[in-house]
Amino acid sequence: MIRVGIVGATGYGGAELVRLLAGHPQVRIANLYSSSSEGEPLDKIFPHVYNLGLPALSSIDAHHLSKENDVVFFATPAGVSAQLSPQVVEMGGRVIDLSGDFRLESPAVYQNWYKREPAAEDWIKQAAYGLTEWNKELVEGAKLIANPGCYPTATLLGLLPLAKSGWVDPQSWIVDAKSGVSGAGRGVSLGVHFSELNESIHAYKVGQHQHTPEIEQELKRQSGVETIVQFTPHLIPMTRGILATAYGKLSAQVSAEQIQELLLSTYAGQPFVRVRPAGSHPRTKEVYGSNYCDIAVHVDERTGRVIVLSVIDNVVKGAAGQAIHNMNVMFDLPETAGLPLVPVFP
Amino acid sequence: MIRVGIVGATGYGGAELVRLLAGHPQVRIANLYSSSSEGEPLDKIFPHVYNLGLPALSSIDAHHLSKENDVVFFATPAGVSAQLSPQVVEMGGRVIDLSGDFRLESPAVYQNWYKREPAAEDWIKQAAYGLTEWNKELVEGAKLIANPGCYPTATLLGLLPLAKSGWVDPQSWIVDAKSGVSGAGRGVSLGVHFSELNESIHAYKVGQHQHTPEIEQELKRQSGVETIVQFTPHLIPMTRGILATAYGKLSAQVSAEQIQELLLSTYAGQPFVRVRPAGSHPRTKEVYGSNYCDIAVHVDERTGRVIVLSVIDNVVKGAAGQAIHNMNVMFDLPETAGLPLVPVFP
Amino acid sequence: MIRVGIVGATGYGGAELVRLLAGHPQVRIANLYSSSSEGEPLDKIFPHVYNLGLPALSSIDAHHLSKENDVVFFATPAGVSAQLSPQVVEMGGRVIDLSGDFRLESPAVYQNWYKREPAAEDWIKQAAYGLTEWNKELVEGAKLIANPGCYPTATLLGLLPLAKSGWVDPQSWIVDAKSGVSGAGRGVSLGVHFSELNESIHAYKVGQHQHTPEIEQELKRQSGVETIVQFTPHLIPMTRGILATAYGKLSAQVSAEQIQELLLSTYAGQPFVRVRPAGSHPRTKEVYGSNYCDIAVHVDERTGRVIVLSVIDNVVKGAAGQAIHNMNVMFDLPETAGLPLVPVFP
Amino acid sequence: MIRVGIVGATGYGGAELVRLLAGHPQVRIANLYSSSSEGEPLDKIFPHVYNLGLPALSSIDAHHLSKENDVVFFATPAGVSAQLSPQVVEMGGRVIDLSGDFRLESPAVYQNWYKREPAAEDWIKQAAYGLTEWNKELVEGAKLIANPGCYPTATLLGLLPLAKSGWVDPQSWIVDAKSGVSGAGRGVSLGVHFSELNESIHAYKVGQHQHTPEIEQELKRQSGVETIVQFTPHLIPMTRGILATAYGKLSAQVSAEQIQELLLSTYAGQPFVRVRPAGSHPRTKEVYGSNYCDIAVHVDERTGRVIVLSVIDNVVKGAAGQAIHNMNVMFDLPETAGLPLVPVFP
Repeated sequence: MIRVGIVGATGYGGAELVRLLAGHPQVRIANLYSSSSEGEPLDKIFPHVYNLGLPALSSIDAHHLSKENDVVFFATPAGVSAQLSPQVVEMGGRVIDLSGDFRLESPAVYQNWYKREPAAEDWIKQAAYGLTEWNKELVEGAKLIANPGCYPTATLLGLLPLAKSGWVDPQSWIVDAKSGVSGAGRGVSLGVHFSELNESIHAYKVGQHQHTPEIEQELKRQSGVETIVQFTPHLIPMTRGILATAYGKLSAQVSAEQIQELLLSTYAGQPFVRVRPAGSHPRTKEVYGSNYCDIAVHVDERTGRVIVLSVIDNVVKGAAGQAIHNMNVMFDLPETAGLPLVPVFP
Repeated sequence: MIRVGIVGATGYGGAELVRLLAGHPQVRIANLYSSSSEGEPLDKIFPHVYNLGLPALSSIDAHHLSKENDVVFFATPAGVSAQLSPQVVEMGGRVIDLSGDFRLESPAVYQNWYKREPAAEDWIKQAAYGLTEWNKELVEGAKLIANPGCYPTATLLGLLPLAKSGWVDPQSWIVDAKSGVSGAGRGVSLGVHFSELNESIHAYKVGQHQHTPEIEQELKRQSGVETIVQFTPHLIPMTRGILATAYGKLSAQVSAEQIQELLLSTYAGQPFVRVRPAGSHPRTKEVYGSNYCDIAVHVDERTGRVIVLSVIDNVVKGAAGQAIHNMNVMFDLPETAGLPLVPVFP
Repeated sequence: MIRVGIVGATGYGGAELVRLLAGHPQVRIANLYSSSSEGEPLDKIFPHVYNLGLPALSSIDAHHLSKENDVVFFATPAGVSAQLSPQVVEMGGRVIDLSGDFRLESPAVYQNWYKREPAAEDWIKQAAYGLTEWNKELVEGAKLIANPGCYPTATLLGLLPLAKSGWVDPQSWIVDAKSGVSGAGRGVSLGVHFSELNESIHAYKVGQHQHTPEIEQELKRQSGVETIVQFTPHLIPMTRGILATAYGKLSAQVSAEQIQELLLSTYAGQPFVRVRPAGSHPRTKEVYGSNYCDIAVHVDERTGRVIVLSVIDNVVKGAAGQAIHNMNVMFDLPETAGLPLVPVFP
Repeated sequence: MIRVGIVGATGYGGAELVRLLAGHPQVRIANLYSSSSEGEPLDKIFPHVYNLGLPALSSIDAHHLSKENDVVFFATPAGVSAQLSPQVVEMGGRVIDLSGDFRLESPAVYQNWYKREPAAEDWIKQAAYGLTEWNKELVEGAKLIANPGCYPTATLLGLLPLAKSGWVDPQSWIVDAKSGVSGAGRGVSLGVHFSELNESIHAYKVGQHQHTPEIEQELKRQSGVETIVQFTPHLIPMTRGILATAYGKLSAQVSAEQIQELLLSTYAGQPFVRVRPAGSHPRTKEVYGSNYCDIAVHVDERTGRVIVLSVIDNVVKGAAGQAIHNMNVMFDLPETAGLPLVPVFP
């Protein structure tokens, strides 16, 4: 059994890792770490795991992290993994980091968008960007995985085939994304107050969301072409789910069928990407609680644009599920091990 | 007192007309009409108006409509007003039509997008497009008003100042709109089933929504320039509210401040358009139950785009409230008469 | 015009007072007070009142409160009014207190349930308990009104006719109440976190909610009989609305029709209590945004119990609306002045 | 591998059976049956199972049902199983019936509450009432299992220990239950219309819900004492979850600790009942997507009552999950096989 440790077990990402790993046949949850609740049982913080026999929360210590686990997941606020993960890896451990600390190759870009100190540059270079379907070889050999952000995951899986095709003007991408509130984490603020969000929708961080450079970086890396993305996130009165509605200007005469073919061939054999029929309208609920990314493509001949709809569960495919998928690849397990087959519906 | 009649009183648009007109100081709700529930009291269909002393439902008859009311509101499915409104006006009545029957100038365009027979062309020509802030002179003298659609209202109020300015490429507009479920009406279907919509979001009618030509027509009429809009509606798990997130490519070197100035001067003195500070993020909840359209503008210098955020309550500003605003203008009443001053929050 | 001041204008109760009083024909909102945001415009805290010309927030001062307003509403946390209201009244002002400070006649009972120091006992005695329909004479002459709690309002309006009738065992009452989240106020905590409340329901403070003695006190005062109520509140994933489902053991052979008659005669002429047909099932949405309390009675002959269903909007009838109703009575205005005629539906 | 067939695969109960059985290590979903969609793939009806390799929908035929499956689940409207299950069992099949057709021992009681013809009386007698924790011996040997209703499951697991204890007056039980909308099924009606239910709560079928006699029957069967339950269901604006708040009059001097002990000893070793600490307030979200029933007990010494809070996911423990639990017992598999260990949170 692979011993896993989870740092940041008292947040939503940590809780979802616990849910999925508890059912993983080749894994044992060996250690849960928290900076705030050392010594407490997890069910004091999360009653939904009441009496499930999970380990109590330990304090965070690099030596313990590296020795008592075969792999450590960081589901922590910005900065925590930047500091600890290099130590853990140096002592022989392996890390899957769900935070943004190692995702951006350029420290200057990180500083610009995150408004804080980046991680050490040589460690950033060693990190594999864990968009599993696209970077399997990198993930297989990695000691340190930068697990993609929730918005980039939904966006990139939809756009990468088109970006590589050369059929779309790479300066034309507009991604209008909609997320459930769980993406904001468990911290308390007016920004997650029920009465303020319920029966309401709003955009936030227009032109300024830190996932923008992450999306652009991977589009460029995979397509070889400098790409600019207009990215706008919105908060939706629901808990889980992201829908990315992406608009690109077609620079070639291609039909919906051709694009559909491209998507189908790109994702053939990928267990967690479901290319839905061209012209369909996937719902976030149709992937709820699962690791699927469902994608549907529309071509509007009137306007010369392709519209890509992409849905994920932000807590699963956008965080914990993708991290486990990466772990499976890292440890040469079946890709789908421990990940739910069927979404929770309704 | 102005005697008003409401056709389609058993739908959500009709119910909202009742709510607002019941509190209007210069109006008396004289008649309620329904094709399905003749003779019944309205509170049998809508318990929220229990015992409020409203007239019982009458059957729909053109003569009665024209003689027993000073103005008739149609809050009816496509086709009803196309047939009846000309008769009512010919007999001397006045009509404010909340359906789409008289909005599109071109019968061919109507047929193409609505997939049904258009109204008679000479009557279409007589109808005034009741986007109140922009067409006040037309509305003042009109006998037949085509009240704008919910999506076009939110979109046009945000885009028209920019469209007229010439600062934005008129082929570049992308409008990603998000609506509460009440916009789908009161009819039953899997499409409005609670368990299917709750905790979920999806796009629908990508590239095919019938409000697209309505938006394009008015943008062209006001700006004089052929305009193409990529319009995508989404359904949000909430009852009321529309947020339109609009993206335009700037063709001139303009700052957010200049655009803000333009919006402020355009809407100076307009009681129901609130230009929010540049860079802010209005929420649909902040206009809930009211006739306001709140607009905020963002300029992304990195991408050379303007992003316009525009929020309304689809049932008020997007339907009944705007209709009453038009009635106020038509009858030379104070513009704000009968319309709530403060939104319902939270 | 009556000059009103609102203390605690930055909370939900204060915001609702602003909404309703802004549309009140005989009132001018003269002053808004806040301990935390002195000098700021209200729309910095509540964007929904953007640009509506409201006074800026003033600091709280007893002298100013009493001299610059004809009546002062306190929508404040426990303890604020206990200290200030006596000073305001002594200087000649009038107070309507939406907090619980002056509701309980017995300081010992207050201390026991609220776990804090009670207000001065002689001032408690001067306060009129503003359950408008039942205490109109008290309210008319009062200088200090203790506006009822949200749960007591829904409960008492349903139970008082039966309590006075002698038809129900006064020890048998069980009130199972369900409330929207706005009742918890605008303060931030895990208890109002969207992702924790959405798609969930739970009871809280079983057997220990501070509204219990308020309900029992008024039942006894009106019926003359010692009454014990088992009261259980629940939090519902919605913003506004309270449903109280009350169960009483019938001690007499009475039919649903007799009880219906009793309710109808009790509330004849009361504009804000709507006795719905016996056997019906009122919904909180049917009173949303309004000052109505809708009541329906069921008699279960199999079990010998009466079940009373009572719905209100907790922010209106359960707080700001009832307070304005009391103000109207206090100043001899029409009872319905400034209060919406038709609920917001859907 | 056990071959399972699901009749009624196009409803919510059927869909949940598919979700859970697809991940069950000892089971193969052999056949899906539907009366309305014969020949279609299931993902045409439920896009969330897109491309998961499930069998297409077959028409319902007793012979096929009995021969091609080792066990057949009926997730069908009232009456379907009453007719078919006896045939299936006679031909040698085994049936787990999620409908109410075989739950009530008395045909007269069935007719009275369900307002339709009961199943054949001799078959009713052969059916085992599958409240797994309480009837394991019956379930082990059964050919036909009447899977309990959702409300009875939540209620009975909470009340049975107390009912057997003799500590509570058996005529005093009041059960105020709150359910998510999925319990109403997938059929379309105004009763499940999003805009009518969202932001609202209401009671329904007060004193008349057909689950009442099911609860009373099992309480009597297990306790030996005639029991009357006042049962009131409510609809909550959420998809999944039931909270039963139950009130009983204590007839003995017992403390919360004693009752806690009773519950703990009753459910020791039961994997799906979690007795939460006395005085806690379980949330439906804490069992979301799982087969747990979480129970917490309160004693109110002031009123002499015990209050039992019991939460389940109505689609899992209240339907499909409990049915699979019964299948596991029937086929001597580990009780927890195929059932999720950790609820979906948030």
